[in-house]
Amino acid sequence: MLVQNKHLTTIWYEQNTDKIKIIDQRLIPFELKIIELNTVDEVCFAIKEMQVRGAPLIGVTAAYGMYIAAREKVDLKEASEKINATRPTAVNLSWALNKIMTNIKDINSDELPDKILELANKIRKDDITNCNNIGKHGYKLIKEVYEKNNKPVNILTHCNAGWLATVDWGTALAPVFVAHKNNIPIHVWVDETRPRNQGFSLTSWELLNENIPNSLIVDNVGGHLMQHNKIDICITGTDRTAGNGDVCNKIGTYLKALAAYDNKIPFYVSAPISSIDFNIENGIRDIPIEQRNSKEVSHIEGLDENNKIQKIKIVPEGAQCVNYAFDVTPAKYITKLITEKGIIDANSSSISRLKN
Amino acid sequence: MLVQNKHLTTIWYEQNTDKIKIIDQRLIPFELKIIELNTVDEVCFAIKEMQVRGAPLIGVTAAYGMYIAAREKVDLKEASEKINATRPTAVNLSWALNKIMTNIKDINSDELPDKILELANKIRKDDITNCNNIGKHGYKLIKEVYEKNNKPVNILTHCNAGWLATVDWGTALAPVFVAHKNNIPIHVWVDETRPRNQGFSLTSWELLNENIPNSLIVDNVGGHLMQHNKIDICITGTDRTAGNGDVCNKIGTYLKALAAYDNKIPFYVSAPISSIDFNIENGIRDIPIEQRNSKEVSHIEGLDENNKIQKIKIVPEGAQCVNYAFDVTPAKYITKLITEKGIIDANSSSISRLKN
Repeated sequence: MLVQNKHLTTIWYEQNTDKIKIIDQRLIPFELKIIELNTVDEVCFAIKEMQVRGAPLIGVTAAYGMYIAAREKVDLKEASEKINATRPTAVNLSWALNKIMTNIKDINSDELPDKILELANKIRKDDITNCNNIGKHGYKLIKEVYEKNNKPVNILTHCNAGWLATVDWGTALAPVFVAHKNNIPIHVWVDETRPRNQGFSLTSWELLNENIPNSLIVDNVGGHLMQHNKIDICITGTDRTAGNGDVCNKIGTYLKALAAYDNKIPFYVSAPISSIDFNIENGIRDIPIEQRNSKEVSHIEGLDENNKIQKIKIVPEGAQCVNYAFDVTPAKYITKLITEKGIIDANSSSISRLKN
Repeated sequence: MLVQNKHLTTIWYEQNTDKIKIIDQRLIPFELKIIELNTVDEVCFAIKEMQVRGAPLIGVTAAYGMYIAAREKVDLKEASEKINATRPTAVNLSWALNKIMTNIKDINSDELPDKILELANKIRKDDITNCNNIGKHGYKLIKEVYEKNNKPVNILTHCNAGWLATVDWGTALAPVFVAHKNNIPIHVWVDETRPRNQGFSLTSWELLNENIPNSLIVDNVGGHLMQHNKIDICITGTDRTAGNGDVCNKIGTYLKALAAYDNKIPFYVSAPISSIDFNIENGIRDIPIEQRNSKEVSHIEGLDENNKIQKIKIVPEGAQCVNYAFDVTPAKYITKLITEKGIIDANSSSISRLKN
């Protein structure tokens, strides 16, 4: 997608320098900084500290991490375990690492770097294609609403599942980008997404760069908007989709799904097949929920009056903060899943058909 | 309630100086500053800019505003209209102003200041008594849970409906304070309450000063906690309670009520009778929802590393923010209303019985 009218992706291999490059997303929207990943430790730091984030993107980053490990002659099993331990909730991480490990079983050690780079490049390329296909399928849902109402379609999204969460296109926002390119008039309500504010910092920045009308709201507002017919459809991403259709996504997704259900507004989840954990039969019971540093809750970053990035503390002395990063939305509140292979019901029988 | 082990209320008349004094709540939790209100304009500013906030407290402040108007020989009807226009949602404002205006019809003009001061002092004193009674009634609900489970009772509250929202005791937190004084072990989950963060700045500060265990969470977390049995009951306040039991309270209350309903957790609303608008039959349709300055969404205040209060901007250049301050929770999601006259159902027949 576009940044200041130039096409950019979140991660790429630069052939002439043999470097893996990423956008350091911690600085967006205030600064656009491209950095290199040169060691397995740098890869782990990038995922853990969220220089890269979003389930699909951390999968792709993990794959390139394995290339770096092979190039640096690090033990691959150890590297894979280390990278896999960086974040517990998104299944794309282990999905990508498994994909690499199972495909290099019969490869000579001196051919490993080239082979893993080839696999990582393929995972990256497939991610772009899959997201684009999610966009094309989801676009039909937006188009239908437009053709019915003949006025701009109001879409609510939570967190960032735009192109910054993938390599390009995004998952939840892919249908939005495709709709915009097809001249469907749309307006996006962007949830702040406390505590890390990915809605305000990333989703809003993506939409502004693509010239898509959007309004920023705090996480508390969505229900009120739905009660007053100001939202036509909701679309979010997923960090792990259980075999029964339960969706684990950024904390607060569940509350919006409840409000959508209460107001009879469709709630779609863009779920690449890489996000599906076919082994999990009950999302609420079985998906591990990451707890992150409480400072993400007690402190917040932004620009001071001199346009310098400042971190401030917003809680009283002695306050104890608790930071759950994800929640699980039961399948019954999800209208449909938008996958790269088409739009399906959020239930076991539909999901199991995607297995092969 | 206590601040650094000394008893304090939010507003009082100081007889020896003939001054109305308030806590400037905009500076809490970082600074405790007592200021005077000397003119009708200062009263309007205090309400509008939220030096005082919370439905009951703005009612009491309005009453003292009328005393100031009478003392300064301002036209009382004009003063009343001016104060009433400061904020649209809480009904306590017009309730207190009407109470003054209807009680001074037959009073000589030179007796007006004394008479209005007497009425305002009475409104203030009644607020304390009513909140204390809400506390005593609501306490029974907390005690019941404790006696059933025999472990600390986990209570979720949204925004601040503690003593800072009233004169003393609070509404939602009054049962919490009474339970604590009666040695019931409790733990309060405190919602941040974006955009103005009254949970983190005010509720948390109140609870820390009273030594009540509490944890701070962003507004997105409550649903997840309920799914995992980490919340036993929810209690919030109300800015306007419709005749049918719909409750208009701080934006985001509706989302928590939906989650409580989905997880079969009781959702109580502490509603002083002054918050009831008997004329409104449908809260969602008829209660005016205040829209506040978008800068409350785009900017946030806290302490920088030098412990100085700083305001930072947390959205990209060019972003458009929308700021709805309240939402309405349909009566069907409210387990009970806790009033100063007892615990009642959130429906027309129970509410209409409180009319006289």
